[in-house]
Amino acid sequence: MRDAKASETGTGGPLSAAEIALFDRWWRAANYLSVGQIYLLANPLLREPLTLDHTKPRLLGHWGTTPGLNFLYLHLNRIIRQRDSSVLFIAGPGHGAPGVVASTYLEGTYSEYFPEVSQDLAGLGRLLKQFSFPGGIPSHAAATTPGSIHEGGELGYSLSHAYGAAFDNPDLVVACVIGDGEAETGPLATSWHGNKFLDPRTDGAVLPILHLNGYKIANPTVLARIPHEELDALLRGYGYAPIFVEGHEPAPMHQKMAAAMDLAFDRIAAIQKAARQQGRTERPAWPMIVLRSPKGWTGPKEIDGLRTEGYWRSHQVPFSDLTKPGHLEALERWLRGYRPEELFDENGRLFADIAALAPVGERRMSANPHANGGQLKRPLKLPDITRYAVPVTVPGGDVGEATRVLGDWLRDVMRENLPARNFRVLSPDENNSNRLNAVLDATGRAWNAERYDYDDHLAPDGHVMEILSEHTCQGWLEGYLLTGRHGFMSCYEAFIHIVDSMVNQHAKWLKSAKEVPWRRAIASLNYLLTSHVWRQDHNGFSHQDPGFIDHVINKKADIVRVYLPPDANTLLCTAAHCLQSWDRINVIVAGKQPEPQWLSMEEAIRHCSAGIGIWEWASNDKGSVPDVVMACAGDVPTLETLAAVKLLREHAPDLKVRVVNVVDLMTLESDGQHPHGLSDSAFDALFTPDRPVVFAFHGYPQLIHKLIYRRANARNFHVHGFREEGSTTTPFDMVVRNRLDRFHLVSNVIDRVPGLATRAAYAKQAIRDKLVDHERYIAEYGRDMPEIEGWRWA
Amino acid sequence: MRDAKASETGTGGPLSAAEIALFDRWWRAANYLSVGQIYLLANPLLREPLTLDHTKPRLLGHWGTTPGLNFLYLHLNRIIRQRDSSVLFIAGPGHGAPGVVASTYLEGTYSEYFPEVSQDLAGLGRLLKQFSFPGGIPSHAAATTPGSIHEGGELGYSLSHAYGAAFDNPDLVVACVIGDGEAETGPLATSWHGNKFLDPRTDGAVLPILHLNGYKIANPTVLARIPHEELDALLRGYGYAPIFVEGHEPAPMHQKMAAAMDLAFDRIAAIQKAARQQGRTERPAWPMIVLRSPKGWTGPKEIDGLRTEGYWRSHQVPFSDLTKPGHLEALERWLRGYRPEELFDENGRLFADIAALAPVGERRMSANPHANGGQLKRPLKLPDITRYAVPVTVPGGDVGEATRVLGDWLRDVMRENLPARNFRVLSPDENNSNRLNAVLDATGRAWNAERYDYDDHLAPDGHVMEILSEHTCQGWLEGYLLTGRHGFMSCYEAFIHIVDSMVNQHAKWLKSAKEVPWRRAIASLNYLLTSHVWRQDHNGFSHQDPGFIDHVINKKADIVRVYLPPDANTLLCTAAHCLQSWDRINVIVAGKQPEPQWLSMEEAIRHCSAGIGIWEWASNDKGSVPDVVMACAGDVPTLETLAAVKLLREHAPDLKVRVVNVVDLMTLESDGQHPHGLSDSAFDALFTPDRPVVFAFHGYPQLIHKLIYRRANARNFHVHGFREEGSTTTPFDMVVRNRLDRFHLVSNVIDRVPGLATRAAYAKQAIRDKLVDHERYIAEYGRDMPEIEGWRWA
Ligand SMILES: Cc1ncc(C[n+]2csc(CCOP(=O)(O)OP(=O)(O)O)c2C)c(N)n1
Ligand SMILES: Cc1ncc(C[n+]2csc(CCOP(=O)(O)OP(=O)(O)O)c2C)c(N)n1
Ligand SMILES: [Mg+2]
Ligand SMILES: [Mg+2]
Repeated sequence: MRDAKASETGTGGPLSAAEIALFDRWWRAANYLSVGQIYLLANPLLREPLTLDHTKPRLLGHWGTTPGLNFLYLHLNRIIRQRDSSVLFIAGPGHGAPGVVASTYLEGTYSEYFPEVSQDLAGLGRLLKQFSFPGGIPSHAAATTPGSIHEGGELGYSLSHAYGAAFDNPDLVVACVIGDGEAETGPLATSWHGNKFLDPRTDGAVLPILHLNGYKIANPTVLARIPHEELDALLRGYGYAPIFVEGHEPAPMHQKMAAAMDLAFDRIAAIQKAARQQGRTERPAWPMIVLRSPKGWTGPKEIDGLRTEGYWRSHQVPFSDLTKPGHLEALERWLRGYRPEELFDENGRLFADIAALAPVGERRMSANPHANGGQLKRPLKLPDITRYAVPVTVPGGDVGEATRVLGDWLRDVMRENLPARNFRVLSPDENNSNRLNAVLDATGRAWNAERYDYDDHLAPDGHVMEILSEHTCQGWLEGYLLTGRHGFMSCYEAFIHIVDSMVNQHAKWLKSAKEVPWRRAIASLNYLLTSHVWRQDHNGFSHQDPGFIDHVINKKADIVRVYLPPDANTLLCTAAHCLQSWDRINVIVAGKQPEPQWLSMEEAIRHCSAGIGIWEWASNDKGSVPDVVMACAGDVPTLETLAAVKLLREHAPDLKVRVVNVVDLMTLESDGQHPHGLSDSAFDALFTPDRPVVFAFHGYPQLIHKLIYRRANARNFHVHGFREEGSTTTPFDMVVRNRLDRFHLVSNVIDRVPGLATRAAYAKQAIRDKLVDHERYIAEYGRDMPEIEGWRWA
Repeated sequence: MRDAKASETGTGGPLSAAEIALFDRWWRAANYLSVGQIYLLANPLLREPLTLDHTKPRLLGHWGTTPGLNFLYLHLNRIIRQRDSSVLFIAGPGHGAPGVVASTYLEGTYSEYFPEVSQDLAGLGRLLKQFSFPGGIPSHAAATTPGSIHEGGELGYSLSHAYGAAFDNPDLVVACVIGDGEAETGPLATSWHGNKFLDPRTDGAVLPILHLNGYKIANPTVLARIPHEELDALLRGYGYAPIFVEGHEPAPMHQKMAAAMDLAFDRIAAIQKAARQQGRTERPAWPMIVLRSPKGWTGPKEIDGLRTEGYWRSHQVPFSDLTKPGHLEALERWLRGYRPEELFDENGRLFADIAALAPVGERRMSANPHANGGQLKRPLKLPDITRYAVPVTVPGGDVGEATRVLGDWLRDVMRENLPARNFRVLSPDENNSNRLNAVLDATGRAWNAERYDYDDHLAPDGHVMEILSEHTCQGWLEGYLLTGRHGFMSCYEAFIHIVDSMVNQHAKWLKSAKEVPWRRAIASLNYLLTSHVWRQDHNGFSHQDPGFIDHVINKKADIVRVYLPPDANTLLCTAAHCLQSWDRINVIVAGKQPEPQWLSMEEAIRHCSAGIGIWEWASNDKGSVPDVVMACAGDVPTLETLAAVKLLREHAPDLKVRVVNVVDLMTLESDGQHPHGLSDSAFDALFTPDRPVVFAFHGYPQLIHKLIYRRANARNFHVHGFREEGSTTTPFDMVVRNRLDRFHLVSNVIDRVPGLATRAAYAKQAIRDKLVDHERYIAEYGRDMPEIEGWRWA
């Protein structure tokens, strides 16, 4: 371990010798319980000599990060008691759950939430046994962990979660421990810039704590292996004033950390005072702490002659095979080194003097109400959507821009909820591109970096959040929702894949949290995916990908909803529905380009409530069995379907065509698989048990087959969708290339309806000719044929 | 625009006045052609007064970034001529394709690759028309762009691509322009650390050029709105020595940029000399350039009274509606401001004195052979896999760790190809966790940050790459492959979703490149996904997700392959096959835990060549029609299937069971959909047209339904797979929770085989009891029952 050579070392001595001794006992207790969770099945306080039978048959867990987490937890507790602060604890290395769980147990919260894990010998036994044990708790800080809003399984999101939690919580300090390995991830590396989006007047504070224990799983970390000056420059470059705490001797380290915490919290207080009382507006250099200490601190120095403490070998279980000579003894020595008899009384209860180091009640980080955000959640006030409706007297008569209309409504959602400060609209620099500009009439874009007078709607406390990082937007939003607020994120459809893995983790969190009785429901994570695959006018193939839907529907059915509103009014209904829902991930896909409008608000409300339905005005099969069902999901597919229906009316006027539009994609699944799924009889009533269904779908066609494979009529579904044929071309050419256009749809109908092929041979040829005309026209004029651009249903 | 206050400003005067004038003409020519590409359909050199008819009906493209790219391209050309350097150009903001394309046209390369875009008036006309035009070229630097290995559509990967290209190319300098918006993305923010993994002795150089034009789509950028000192600290913190070039007056800016380039290339030369000739080993502070210049530089200052140059309004097409009063005139003024008559001769050819600014032949960045890496690619030497085979005399007799065996072979692949320096093994800090440790016997882990004597296999020129950033690993690998080399990446299965979107983009690049006749095939992108969903012993639910397979199979069929080898020998066959393939994305999923071995190498080779087959030794239906087909794909599902078969032999000995194992998942698709797909007759021969198929699958069950929906027997497939039920628990409990275990498989067989349910009522009950025993056992002992842990096929 290098000498501490800090730009500002937290030296000095806020702690008395007695306090240090007491602190050390808490820390030893936490470390003892951590090692115990990893190794022990019985004999929790080593009241008997340790035998193999007392140890777990499968040793699973992560030790390396744990002592550092315990150390920080303790020192944060000191500050909380001293200042009566409200602090949320985020453990980036959530794999150090043994530590987080131990600390919450020492605080008493764990036993309050899980009474069987009581503050006595029996409870201690349960605490140790349950960890990473079947029927027990997982090995990461999870939804089951009191005080946690962050699992830390997939690394990289701690700091964006922390900022999300701090926004609009002016009294909260979010202490965020960041692993030095985690700091190498992209999402973490950019999330430091959250300080340019945080308003010291109206938001809380984030205290990043870089946990420089030097190693990740089996490698050193980059940030631990650059010169001190370089690290210092990096953190200052990120806009922070770092306080370095470096060393490994417990006593001086307690002293240094206490001083560092004092300094950090003093600075936070000073910054907030300057901003809130003295009107200071420049962005402050927020404090942060760098803790450089050995990985596996206080653990065995060597195992089998190999360096262990202060090395990557401490990462998981430092030694596993306890039957190996010396291992069991090493474990016993290690555990006894914490002197459990000085920590827990005869009954297995933490000594009162140590226990008194914990804050009380909701001041305990493990009981901070923000960590169970559903408790604090207030429903949004939602303005009546009918006031924003696009008037539709004839279907397809008028043209509207769906997302722009939504923007008007969102502006007023923002206005009505601004006093409560619990709603944010996020996007990766695409708010206006996605045509939600109107929201900026209600609030600015959050911006605490430099501003000029010609800037456009930047405001320190703006509630529109834009940074060119899908990860950061997602992380902020998750943090905001998990602490009981609401949000709405818009994103280019193709690039939402950037957060596929974050969505996975959030879905998993939601699923797990539902299984924890004391967790309260949080607001849903709402996406508007626009600038979608079919209308990428300024961009091309790289921006064309509708596969996010495929990604999300693998998640547990009660978590995920996918909506494809075909026009502005259905989009309004859908969005209003989503903003009232909870514990879900709602994906809305809707275009931003001018498109025909189909349904009046009345009709839209009815259609969206059902999620799927026959469009009677477009069908001609009433009272008989249809020859073909033309189904569609998505705005562009709906347009092409109706255009196809119109062509069919010309070319085959006696053909009985039924048009079914799908808004809620999950209706297609069977009711056994998804709560929104149609029953088989309802499905068959719509799609018939045996007629051909030509389905125009927004996304990859196989997805529809996957959803309906159990249906009676599955084999007669012929789905058109994205076939990975993209480029910068005209809007109609995009559908043609992927055979989703009206002509290919009609042609497929002709092929599929028995007997029609011979009758409609001329029609087929006319259609083929049209496609040739189309190709020649666009190559010459660079735009779609007038009959395409000017096409109207009515 | 702020004054230049640089830590080291590139002032001074390398350029003569005449050179400046000439440079300015090149730049004007590039800018002229860029604006022309966005706006003009005809009248390319404005030889007639501009009319609406000369303009494109749809104005699509990005202007804002373009003049900066043109400026940099020109100055890089100067250096290349001066020093005869080999430079690769990466445009992070590849949406500035008008500029990249214009520059390559001025160099003559464009016309060499696309002869119809000739160096005359007609060619100029084609150049301008084709941009963002149907049948023409896309709006981003794409596979069609000479000299490009990077599309820049989805922002964030330029710098990791640059490092990937520079590794093992000691004579190459990769100049990488990074948008200041792009710099906000996570992947970009961490990719700066590439300099800790680059060996100045054996790798080339990366010259990052941060393009601080101040704006992204509709917002200022973070890095343009922090104080100069903070930015400088950040870049120094990232380990660079930044050179700032700031301003907007062309003449002094040319002078400053020339000086900056001189300085940067001098420093690169000095660093390389120190390392290569003087044996210097400390990591150097590599130079980088910060170009702070107005967005839309030289474009209109205002449009309709609104700030445009030096503002986000320049991002795309600064003004679109040319019928609006004054707009057409503004466009003409803008274009004529570049004085095209001073740039192109009567025939539309660039004046020779300007043209002479370009380097010649392969020194032109657009003709650099590394940018068409397939040209340089040499096949890997692959040691004979049979030498690494696990001996299997009885199926299931022995236990082996598949990835460890693979590691032995990879070690020797590494050894044999180290002299050629064209193979790297990458992972996000998981190489050893994934049990590929043996590779480290052949080479170290690349590491140019600080090292200590107790470090483990760190080496400046190591060919194992480990950084805790899936994005960076992926970006490095892509850059390495695109420049003609080979690689192999291992990753935890769940976290490969982190790069979902990068994989999309790479797949799109491969597809597009295949359509470009002069692009040569590159080595495939090979993944080993391990630490998979079924064996997450140290972790839990957050690490359990088999959905990457779902993600990739949406891509074009000729790009994607998915392999699920059930044991070590099949894994060896698969990996050897993948490392010899090209232009593909190969996904191999295989476990790292000890598992039974099924096939001898002989059998493995045969099985893998077919990709699917009946395991005769496990079946008892030979010569008759099976009562049930037990299919399996994946190592754990194969184990459970065989265990189920054994149970069935006990409980229903006369049941005719056929076991089909799938290695190559794409065989399940029909041959019309995928080149590896089985014909319907071959499929029916394996799976029967009408018998129940109980399919144990590694991933989400619906995926199988999606692949087989067209098959005759589709409705009789009953698929078991991951149902999102995960936690930290025993291996067998994971399969039980998801009903993929032997007992649930048997139970399903009993339900599905007509008539069996009544006969096998007792068996069903026995099975139910086993599951109860299982649950009780693991809750008490924390490990699987001995009969599970000790289960053997033979
Ligand atoms: C995105 C991601 N990639 C890989 C892993 C596998 N992994 C688990 S822990 C770990 C090392 C973490 O190192 P660090 O952040 O320094 O934590 P600490 O040293 O405190 O344990 C890795 C790579 C992961 N959890 N997440
Ligand atoms: C990952 C990602 N998110 C969003 C976008 C949409 N987008 C296209 S260009 C752009 C702004 C880019 O700004 P910058 O990198 O500064 O480039 P420049 O100013 O040079 O155009 C954005 C957000 C994208 N291309 N990629
Ligand atoms: Mg670490
Ligand atoms: Mg920019």
